[in-house]
Amino acid sequence: MYSLLPGLRVVEASSFVACPTAGLYLAQMGAEVIRVDQVGGGPDYRRWPRAPGGGSFYWEGLNKGKLSVAIDLSAPEGRELLTRIATQPGKQAGVFLTNFPVNGFLSWEKLSALRPDLVLTRVMGKPDGGPALDYTVASALGIPFITGPESMGEEPVNAVLPAWDLLTGAYAAFATLAALRHRDATGEGQEVRVPLADVGIATIANLGQLAETLQGGDRQRYGNEVFGAFGRDFVTRDGERLMLMAITPRQWKGLVSVLDIAEQVARIEAERGTSFATDEGERFRHRDALFPLVEQAAASRDSGELMEQLDAAGCCWGPYKRMEQAVRDPEMVGNNPLFSQIAQPSGESYAVPGAMATLPGLDRQEPSPARTLGADTERVLMDVVGLGSGEFSSLVDRGIVARAD
Amino acid sequence: MYSLLPGLRVVEASSFVACPTAGLYLAQMGAEVIRVDQVGGGPDYRRWPRAPGGGSFYWEGLNKGKLSVAIDLSAPEGRELLTRIATQPGKQAGVFLTNFPVNGFLSWEKLSALRPDLVLTRVMGKPDGGPALDYTVASALGIPFITGPESMGEEPVNAVLPAWDLLTGAYAAFATLAALRHRDATGEGQEVRVPLADVGIATIANLGQLAETLQGGDRQRYGNEVFGAFGRDFVTRDGERLMLMAITPRQWKGLVSVLDIAEQVARIEAERGTSFATDEGERFRHRDALFPLVEQAAASRDSGELMEQLDAAGCCWGPYKRMEQAVRDPEMVGNNPLFSQIAQPSGESYAVPGAMATLPGLDRQEPSPARTLGADTERVLMDVVGLGSGEFSSLVDRGIVARAD
Repeated sequence: MYSLLPGLRVVEASSFVACPTAGLYLAQMGAEVIRVDQVGGGPDYRRWPRAPGGGSFYWEGLNKGKLSVAIDLSAPEGRELLTRIATQPGKQAGVFLTNFPVNGFLSWEKLSALRPDLVLTRVMGKPDGGPALDYTVASALGIPFITGPESMGEEPVNAVLPAWDLLTGAYAAFATLAALRHRDATGEGQEVRVPLADVGIATIANLGQLAETLQGGDRQRYGNEVFGAFGRDFVTRDGERLMLMAITPRQWKGLVSVLDIAEQVARIEAERGTSFATDEGERFRHRDALFPLVEQAAASRDSGELMEQLDAAGCCWGPYKRMEQAVRDPEMVGNNPLFSQIAQPSGESYAVPGAMATLPGLDRQEPSPARTLGADTERVLMDVVGLGSGEFSSLVDRGIVARAD
Repeated sequence: MYSLLPGLRVVEASSFVACPTAGLYLAQMGAEVIRVDQVGGGPDYRRWPRAPGGGSFYWEGLNKGKLSVAIDLSAPEGRELLTRIATQPGKQAGVFLTNFPVNGFLSWEKLSALRPDLVLTRVMGKPDGGPALDYTVASALGIPFITGPESMGEEPVNAVLPAWDLLTGAYAAFATLAALRHRDATGEGQEVRVPLADVGIATIANLGQLAETLQGGDRQRYGNEVFGAFGRDFVTRDGERLMLMAITPRQWKGLVSVLDIAEQVARIEAERGTSFATDEGERFRHRDALFPLVEQAAASRDSGELMEQLDAAGCCWGPYKRMEQAVRDPEMVGNNPLFSQIAQPSGESYAVPGAMATLPGLDRQEPSPARTLGADTERVLMDVVGLGSGEFSSLVDRGIVARAD
């Protein structure tokens, strides 16, 4: 955690991945993020993966460092309370993140009536308000048909990382700060809609793949090969699998030198009238000749020696690890200053990361755990909304709000 | 494009995906982004996919709406020019994005000596400055071993979307604005380092998967199934493949009703002593019983009718399209207000997206094309750096800078 946004107050009423990550990123940069959940937990409160005791590793992973308020959002009174929390006055308040329906009780119309200069960032599925999730965005874009080896034929291969959720969440955090900067300059509020489906198709276009596909049709399946560059998995003599890539001239030069294949490469260049030194596209075009060379060279080396030489030459490569190895790797987790061992509400204590960026000029504070559901209901309703203790007790008694279990 | 960050000046010296997307997102929200490239093009200038005439769809996709300056960055004089552009004074200037080496001529030490309150966002591979790319980050995390069907055995399956690059880029844009807000409040500059490898492992942890893997070892391969929820691809009677999901109680209720399987589902619930209504994890745990039911129900419906019913019931589903269908889909591209048909430097005219967010309160301006390499060299060096025309001509004559071809 870094104290880069001290005093900024953000209210989040959301679930699943995209919108909660936007709140998480803001919290990890020092904003006070008030997450509002349904009493008893919203639809993502028990999401897998779960701890042995039943607590959700997922929920506590995405809600680290946020205050937790539990409100019955099915009750009109609960809904009104949420709108009051979200629209509290103050130059550093009035920022609201949600994935609730665009035309429901958290519509721009209703919220901006209470605070016209609200910054309201709304993560959506489709731009028309229809549902879409990471997997349905990916399938609608055709990505599963170009994932995996050619042998998959007509079978789609889904990705396991919710990439569209994650990108949407980070972009929503960015767009929120952009709208806030605009408000600081002009006094104007803003609704910022970030639909997953638009993030998907715009990204395909930004990467040049929309134009490519319009011109040349679908990209074929390239298995583990990197399109348009030199890259693939190769196996060493001792059976280790490495991802070897060369994107820059320096990386290619290093790879050729480490593998000692300069002569053979020069022969291919002469035969085919091309040069691989600076044009990564040519390395892809002629991969039928280059891959066997590299395969053979990799298969004649032991991984330990090869990895050292690749590092020394500034090559770009990565091991293929199992995730179980990755999470126990001291470089990635144990000795990585991002991580601290802390206790989470599930009752488990484990390595937890703070902000994904490193700011050498500021102190990195220890990551905060997630709060127990409802742990801050009382404090937020009394301090932020200004309820009296009698009012608060009455809300608790009537089940409109809840404290921590 | 939206005019949300008018007047803000950002300088970008970068290549590939992550850092250029950060600049793109800022430009699409109205910042003036000055992209500096090597004379003749940097390592990503000819990247695939390419237009028939040779221009890079990729390069022009990621550099839309940025000014283009061409400088010989191998020459000391060129390097000094870049540092001067990046560190120009002004409250709305002094924001610099780069993926250049951490200890090179664009180090924090050197740049902050010229402008102490610089906001310098540096996209990196590994946190120690070593190289890492999207694919090597993914392989080191073990993701390829849990992608694809069980039949892949010990073979890894790489993802085709550069998800780590994209997430890193959006997060870098977010962190840049956070650091800028801090500078506005305190006058302090900041180096913000965003290493791809840290974004990777922190994200796995944020999603709860680090804790899961520490406790229970590697997740198995689930093919196209969604972990921890109800979701998979199913084929209809007329041979259409649909991704059907149910994350929320409402989506599950809708799916059960549309597929008319309430009785069979109730029988499974009774037999197994569980309820699928609100706990998506139970739907995953008992997928051995639920999938065959849904398979059979989907196989007895035609897709047209089924899709209509799913929509009417608020279900979450997506078609499996080919990308070729997606890019010609009027809803996604042709009639989507994100997109405009514009001419790009490749000489091709095609649908190009603006900002991925929609701001109903502001005018969406037409997306700007990428500029020809070096098109703004003269203007930026004269107007921004304040060079005289004699100085500029001399730089051109000596090959230190270049105008557009």
